[in-house]
Amino acid sequence: MINTIHYPEKSAWQELCARPVSKNNFVNAIVSDIIARVKNEGDRALFHYAELFDKITLDSLKVTDAEISAGRAKVPDELKKAISVAKANIEKFHSQQLIRKGTPIETSAGVRCWSKSVPIEKVGLYIPGGSASLFSTVLMLGTPARIAGCNEVVMCTPADKNGNIDPAVLYTADLVGITNIFKVGGAQAIAAMAFGTQTIPKIMKIFGPGNQYVTKAKELIIQEGVAIDMPAGPSEALIIADSEANPQFIAADLLSQAEHGADSQVIMLTDSASLTKDVSSAIKMQLEKLPRKDIASKAMECSMMIVMKSLEECMEFSNMYAPEHLIINTANHARLSQRVVNAGSVFLGGYSCESAGDYASGTNHTLPTNGFAKNYSGISVGSFCKTISFQEITPGGLLDIGPTIEIMAEAENLTAHKNAISIRLKTLAENRKPLP
Amino acid sequence: MINTIHYPEKSAWQELCARPVSKNNFVNAIVSDIIARVKNEGDRALFHYAELFDKITLDSLKVTDAEISAGRAKVPDELKKAISVAKANIEKFHSQQLIRKGTPIETSAGVRCWSKSVPIEKVGLYIPGGSASLFSTVLMLGTPARIAGCNEVVMCTPADKNGNIDPAVLYTADLVGITNIFKVGGAQAIAAMAFGTQTIPKIMKIFGPGNQYVTKAKELIIQEGVAIDMPAGPSEALIIADSEANPQFIAADLLSQAEHGADSQVIMLTDSASLTKDVSSAIKMQLEKLPRKDIASKAMECSMMIVMKSLEECMEFSNMYAPEHLIINTANHARLSQRVVNAGSVFLGGYSCESAGDYASGTNHTLPTNGFAKNYSGISVGSFCKTISFQEITPGGLLDIGPTIEIMAEAENLTAHKNAISIRLKTLAENRKPLP
Repeated sequence: MINTIHYPEKSAWQELCARPVSKNNFVNAIVSDIIARVKNEGDRALFHYAELFDKITLDSLKVTDAEISAGRAKVPDELKKAISVAKANIEKFHSQQLIRKGTPIETSAGVRCWSKSVPIEKVGLYIPGGSASLFSTVLMLGTPARIAGCNEVVMCTPADKNGNIDPAVLYTADLVGITNIFKVGGAQAIAAMAFGTQTIPKIMKIFGPGNQYVTKAKELIIQEGVAIDMPAGPSEALIIADSEANPQFIAADLLSQAEHGADSQVIMLTDSASLTKDVSSAIKMQLEKLPRKDIASKAMECSMMIVMKSLEECMEFSNMYAPEHLIINTANHARLSQRVVNAGSVFLGGYSCESAGDYASGTNHTLPTNGFAKNYSGISVGSFCKTISFQEITPGGLLDIGPTIEIMAEAENLTAHKNAISIRLKTLAENRKPLP
Repeated sequence: MINTIHYPEKSAWQELCARPVSKNNFVNAIVSDIIARVKNEGDRALFHYAELFDKITLDSLKVTDAEISAGRAKVPDELKKAISVAKANIEKFHSQQLIRKGTPIETSAGVRCWSKSVPIEKVGLYIPGGSASLFSTVLMLGTPARIAGCNEVVMCTPADKNGNIDPAVLYTADLVGITNIFKVGGAQAIAAMAFGTQTIPKIMKIFGPGNQYVTKAKELIIQEGVAIDMPAGPSEALIIADSEANPQFIAADLLSQAEHGADSQVIMLTDSASLTKDVSSAIKMQLEKLPRKDIASKAMECSMMIVMKSLEECMEFSNMYAPEHLIINTANHARLSQRVVNAGSVFLGGYSCESAGDYASGTNHTLPTNGFAKNYSGISVGSFCKTISFQEITPGGLLDIGPTIEIMAEAENLTAHKNAISIRLKTLAENRKPLP
């Protein structure tokens, strides 16, 4: 069960913030081999790995229109409607993130600079297979990709034992306008999108979660010039709660994080020692009824409830931990949330549960884990764009700013840089080109 | 000298876009050793490497206030004034990039979401040493770091043979408010900032250019959880010019890029065959007078002038090449620039030369090279921040959106996620908590 710690010394915080480490050194070698083989053999390697790892013989990698139609027919109307509601909210929130052109700034007279956000032309989304159908991740990656305006959105996801892809995943992909869907999973999917194969287009940036093989493949593929969304690690949630918080709500939130995987970590921080007992009982009660009880129990063993001297101390600890999800379930959440420095996504009050952000409130659920919230952001429309700066300098502007540049270039011993200015100033002085 | 190519077939473009490759396989092993030693030995390793690589015995790593004062006294007033002008322009352009809080969006009734940009707490800047004093890079990295509001900005730069740092570099660092300056260069500087040593604080993201050892160290350090600004490669410029462009200007711009290093690449694209001859003569003339003639000549050997059928084709090629710097020196630059898809920074017209952006127009000069402009952006204030999403859902909001989430969570077999909603909806139904 979950551990309870009372008033830890600050000197011990750093250690409490450390994530459970599971390093498999052999992963690097296996993934390197897979990448090399996909690079050399293309599709042939993909068919091979489908047989080796997924025990399926595929006829073709690309999902057909007929398969998409068949998938659509299998998704219950109730779920279709729910996905539409979620999609609308995600679109509303993400649409405001799109700023195509920055305000042009005249930094000095005749020197006009601006920036422009341009979609990355070709992006790849990886959607894991396995026990859960992750159509929500298709929404969370596909929607901002479409808003950004990426030309080509490729999706890879492993097929099941019968060579099929989950109908809800196909339905959602189709709904957000993704038609280039391939039955490839694991590290080989990452390699296929990075290099391109006979069937799968080469893309410029790869998004999406995955197991340790997928994560390692993304890590290695950066060195091939392909960008990735962010480094990955096990999912995690931290809850700050006061004595007024409902222990049943807290237990439910902790368990909803814990059911993600045995390596998930959940932490509750509070200034109320009595709350921990109530939450502990609620966890026991709720855990019994969970289908994923075994997974959640294991995750609970690495998890903690920590009693702190004050809510301010709780927030200080949270900033050191840098949680992927931070739930502030306190009466003073509005004030406390001003102090958030490191977190992926923050949920305020008793009714803003993580599940809402995971599915349908509108924010993105692809977030930095493992302490990466200190130096990385979650997915936004900006993740699918790059920013280009522009400048236009008039002859008058160059007359004004030119001497400054000449002095600086000379001081850096870059004479040709200086010449590029001097030759223009000379031309202007000789009046070959009249000032406009 | 620079090569001229006439009307290449489109099938040959991809190859023409390939950068000259220089792979040194031993770099990986050397840099891995340096990183391991700095991690284990801290400062002791840094003193060791200063002796081994830089042939200096340092008394201390940290630059003292007295050294900064002494540096300030050595910088000519003229240069101080130029740096101030550049700093003011860079501040003007970068200040508008700071958007602290996104507009809150009510995605559905009672569901309010927003995002907030928060500075990365501790960042490290690497400023290379060597032949050129790179105070301009201090401006380009230090200014956005300060505007972002990073708590701690650490700077590492190698000392010269006498243990000193270039006065202009010290002066500029002090001017932008950087006081934590350390005499450490190379891969060991990257490792020191990544792990922290007895003297050098551990930081969360590393910025700045460097040689192949520094680049490799940044590449490897990502796996330790430290973020970096962007992958690196040799500097490059592409100029699109028409028959009206001044050949002397073009030659000066090509050479100002070429003097950066023998591995720099410069390309001119034009629809005017006669222009290439004039530019070629101008290059020969200007090259003779350059102090860095040898470097620029070598860079010219890997460089090209390509005559295309039209300016539109030039732009198409440029987007495939994805240049770090793109100069559009044509009469129709306003129209042509609308078509830029892949470039780091774009300079429009005959008087917007790259030198301006390198030093003082206001845009940043730390830009994606090596084709990375396809999937990475140059440095901005956002590079020094991460974005955190927030949400606040009222009981009424959850009543509304809750069933949608329940349906989706159930379809993904995540029962605990569903429970987190169900338990709240049940509580609301039982009216234990009255609706506000």
